[in-house]
Amino acid sequence: MILEAVPLRIKPGQSQAFEAAFREAQSIISAMPGYRSHELQRCLEREGEYLLLVRWDSVAAHEDGFRRSPQYQQWRELLHHFYDPFPTVLHYEQVEGGGAS
Amino acid sequence: MILEAVPLRIKPGQSQAFEAAFREAQSIISAMPGYRSHELQRCLEREGEYLLLVRWDSVAAHEDGFRRSPQYQQWRELLHHFYDPFPTVLHYEQVEGGGAS
Repeated sequence: MILEAVPLRIKPGQSQAFEAAFREAQSIISAMPGYRSHELQRCLEREGEYLLLVRWDSVAAHEDGFRRSPQYQQWRELLHHFYDPFPTVLHYEQVEGGGAS
Repeated sequence: MILEAVPLRIKPGQSQAFEAAFREAQSIISAMPGYRSHELQRCLEREGEYLLLVRWDSVAAHEDGFRRSPQYQQWRELLHHFYDPFPTVLHYEQVEGGGAS
C-alpha cells in the first residue's frame, strides 16, 4: 500500500464550495480499482489549506489507473478550479517499523 | 481527534540513521497522554523526504502535553539534528463527510 499526499490551497472565499464539491467528488476515487481509503483534512492554522491523503494499492493504481481514466476528467472538473496554486502530488511508503496505533 | 502533519527533509546521506533513530524515538510519543497513532512515510519521488503523521486527541495534547514534557527533550535530541531545514508543523481536522475506507 502507498500513500498519496497532496497539500491543497483553495482560492480565497471558496473553501465551503470546495468542501461541498469534494463530498461529491470523493465517490469517484472511492470506486476506482486499487483505492483503499481517503481523508480530506482541513488545516487549523492556515485558512483555506487542506491535506488530502489517499491510500492506494500501488502508485500505478493512482497514476496509470485513476489519472488515465475517464472518471479523472470528472474529478478534475469538479475540483481543480478551486486550487491556487496547482498542488504537487507526492507518494509515500511507510517506513518499516515506523508506525503504531 | 486531530492530525499533526510534518513534512521532513533529512540531511543528505543520513536517511538510514534517521529511520533507525525514529524507530527508537517513536516509543516516546506513543506513550504520551492523548496520543492515538502515528506513521512515518518515506517519499518515493524525493530522496531524503518524509511525511510524519501523528494523531492526537487534541492540539493541546500535542502542544501543551507533549511539547512541554521532559520526554520532548529526549525526542528532540534523537531526531532534530537530522532535519534541514527545521520542519513546519501543522494541525488538521477531518472535513465532515470528507473521508471513507
